Amino acid sequence: MNSIDKLSEIFKHFPGIGPRQAKRFVYYLLSRDKATLKSLSEAIGALSEETTQCEDCRRYFCIGSPSKTSPKCTTCEDESRDPFLLMIVPRDADFESVEKSGGFHGYYFVLGGVLPILEKEPEKRIRIAELKKLLKKKEEVKEVILAMNANSDGENTAEFLKDEIRTLKPDISVSTLGRGLSTGAELEYADPDTLKNALLHRTK
Amino acid sequence: MNSIDKLSEIFKHFPGIGPRQAKRFVYYLLSRDKATLKSLSEAIGALSEETTQCEDCRRYFCIGSPSKTSPKCTTCEDESRDPFLLMIVPRDADFESVEKSGGFHGYYFVLGGVLPILEKEPEKRIRIAELKKLLKKKEEVKEVILAMNANSDGENTAEFLKDEIRTLKPDISVSTLGRGLSTGAELEYADPDTLKNALLHRTK
Amino acid sequence: MNSIDKLSEIFKHFPGIGPRQAKRFVYYLLSRDKATLKSLSEAIGALSEETTQCEDCRRYFCIGSPSKTSPKCTTCEDESRDPFLLMIVPRDADFESVEKSGGFHGYYFVLGGVLPILEKEPEKRIRIAELKKLLKKKEEVKEVILAMNANSDGENTAEFLKDEIRTLKPDISVSTLGRGLSTGAELEYADPDTLKNALLHRTK
Amino acid sequence: MNSIDKLSEIFKHFPGIGPRQAKRFVYYLLSRDKATLKSLSEAIGALSEETTQCEDCRRYFCIGSPSKTSPKCTTCEDESRDPFLLMIVPRDADFESVEKSGGFHGYYFVLGGVLPILEKEPEKRIRIAELKKLLKKKEEVKEVILAMNANSDGENTAEFLKDEIRTLKPDISVSTLGRGLSTGAELEYADPDTLKNALLHRTK
Repeated sequence: MNSIDKLSEIFKHFPGIGPRQAKRFVYYLLSRDKATLKSLSEAIGALSEETTQCEDCRRYFCIGSPSKTSPKCTTCEDESRDPFLLMIVPRDADFESVEKSGGFHGYYFVLGGVLPILEKEPEKRIRIAELKKLLKKKEEVKEVILAMNANSDGENTAEFLKDEIRTLKPDISVSTLGRGLSTGAELEYADPDTLKNALLHRTK
Repeated sequence: MNSIDKLSEIFKHFPGIGPRQAKRFVYYLLSRDKATLKSLSEAIGALSEETTQCEDCRRYFCIGSPSKTSPKCTTCEDESRDPFLLMIVPRDADFESVEKSGGFHGYYFVLGGVLPILEKEPEKRIRIAELKKLLKKKEEVKEVILAMNANSDGENTAEFLKDEIRTLKPDISVSTLGRGLSTGAELEYADPDTLKNALLHRTK
Repeated sequence: MNSIDKLSEIFKHFPGIGPRQAKRFVYYLLSRDKATLKSLSEAIGALSEETTQCEDCRRYFCIGSPSKTSPKCTTCEDESRDPFLLMIVPRDADFESVEKSGGFHGYYFVLGGVLPILEKEPEKRIRIAELKKLLKKKEEVKEVILAMNANSDGENTAEFLKDEIRTLKPDISVSTLGRGLSTGAELEYADPDTLKNALLHRTK
Repeated sequence: MNSIDKLSEIFKHFPGIGPRQAKRFVYYLLSRDKATLKSLSEAIGALSEETTQCEDCRRYFCIGSPSKTSPKCTTCEDESRDPFLLMIVPRDADFESVEKSGGFHGYYFVLGGVLPILEKEPEKRIRIAELKKLLKKKEEVKEVILAMNANSDGENTAEFLKDEIRTLKPDISVSTLGRGLSTGAELEYADPDTLKNALLHRTK
């Protein structure tokens, strides 16, 4: 395979990219100068050198300097956070979204995925072993917040995690994110579940 | 104007209908037989005869039989409902949506619209006089739930109503629908407000 | 069924309208005053009185005055048009679209529909008997233009009509609309058929 | 800037990619193994080594083997093609689209872009100098087909090219792609220009 086809093939596996857009990416790169291509090639090469996975929350982060050997990210190292709260999110992007909202001040764990219904090998889909290890280590945690997407995979994952955590640490409180009207939601188009929850959680 | 153009003109004002679809409606009607047209014409003519506005909740409903003179809808007449709760919704369609969810068992009031920000004549946009009248009449109401859409007009309307109700009946508790993750919402795309509320209303 | 439900039911059959929008139409009408409802009811009632189908092109049109008994539309009565050309279009809306383009000066015939592939009773779907009658009457026609949509039903209908016309009047020339790049089309996304035709019909 | 941010920044400039998807690309890469990253990094690095621009049609292509020094692509080297026809397309992707349609057997020239209306420096946007050079070299060309998108930029580019080619080689015939109904187009929604052209190019 020549390098144009090889590159199209790789781009086709990028999230949300089909064969046509993959080809457009290659044409885009072909029309760049050598310096730009070199810089992109190097940035990708550097990715595995300069990044590592946090040994606590399991998200990927950049190691500040090559000498720094700490395997913990800045969030997990931040001692001003609330040690009683641990939020489990499916992916790195979810961590970013919650962190940007400014509404949470505890620690995180990135699960690495979700569990589809009837999944037979959960441990291959999500970091359940790593989660258990962290929960054993963080003895101070009092509440685990299961921050899953409000869909069937998210609910299934939450059910699975609830069982695992309760077996491992029966004293930990396990909560899920509140359901209700998202910003922009309209009553007329809201589903019964959302409406019921919005009523249940009404604020005075 | 001939009847084809006149009808197009009327259909153009139907909610969500542009000139092209208005024309298609006319062509559709032209290809129906006389009996169908007569039946539609009569149904529209009957609408103002057979429907009335409920004197309590102000929604439109069909009068069961011509002799029935009651100006109250079946929901407002239903004495098994919780008399302490009154939910204010913007429109008839919102009433239907909440009622279908099965999550609410009090009484309703249909506001007839929402207040855009900086609206100078609120009483022309919404049924504020009728609401006040109803609140005076329904002395038993303990909580008014402002069930507005989760957008800026909805928030503005809720603010206005809160002030009016508190001035009129300071002892009534005023609540708004709970915010959080709507069914199907994903963390990655959720806005900060929704995430903060989802966290605040987390359920154990 | 009460008049609200009856009306919803009728609107649900309007082209492109689902149950939810049908209901919104009813609510929209409920909030209009009696005069508006009366005017709509009358316009629909008048439709079958004031309109008729042209005996030549078969499209629906308004009869100018009640005394006017002519069963021909103004287009078919216009003697300045080219009598050698007859264009067959699927529906009334297609007639309007072509007429507005200003590019055609012959006469029309509205087929009343298209033939899906493998349709067993073509005469129930399209006005084939009426077309044959018109072709016998209009002896001067030299070319019939089959102005069908550029999709498989359109092509199927064109094939069927071609056979019928050739059997009836072997000397008439039968043509179809030119294929090529529609306004706004982009090469990158154009299908092979469109590209081949665009090449074939290139203009110098 | 760390390598995660640097890479997001580069992906943001990929065609059709916004900041959020750029970030998702980075997370996607972070979760791949080292071998995959190395392979992508190398493929991008190889791109400028293994590809070159054809000295005739100016499109990018892979050099078969390192020893091969030919600066012509296989299409331009194919002597079985029609030497009288030269098609000018805006971009590499357009070349591919036309070539796949199988409807053209002459040679190509890739312009590298289009000219927006009122563009003051056309020579910076499109390969006009290279086109002139090729036309001087290819003395046998009898017809140049301007295969532009059917929009205002495409028409503007065609106008510009027509003038340039006529000044340079007054004897060459210059044509544009035929306009008409694209596959799937419906009469009701077709614009007047498309309809007029479809009528003009009707086929018997």
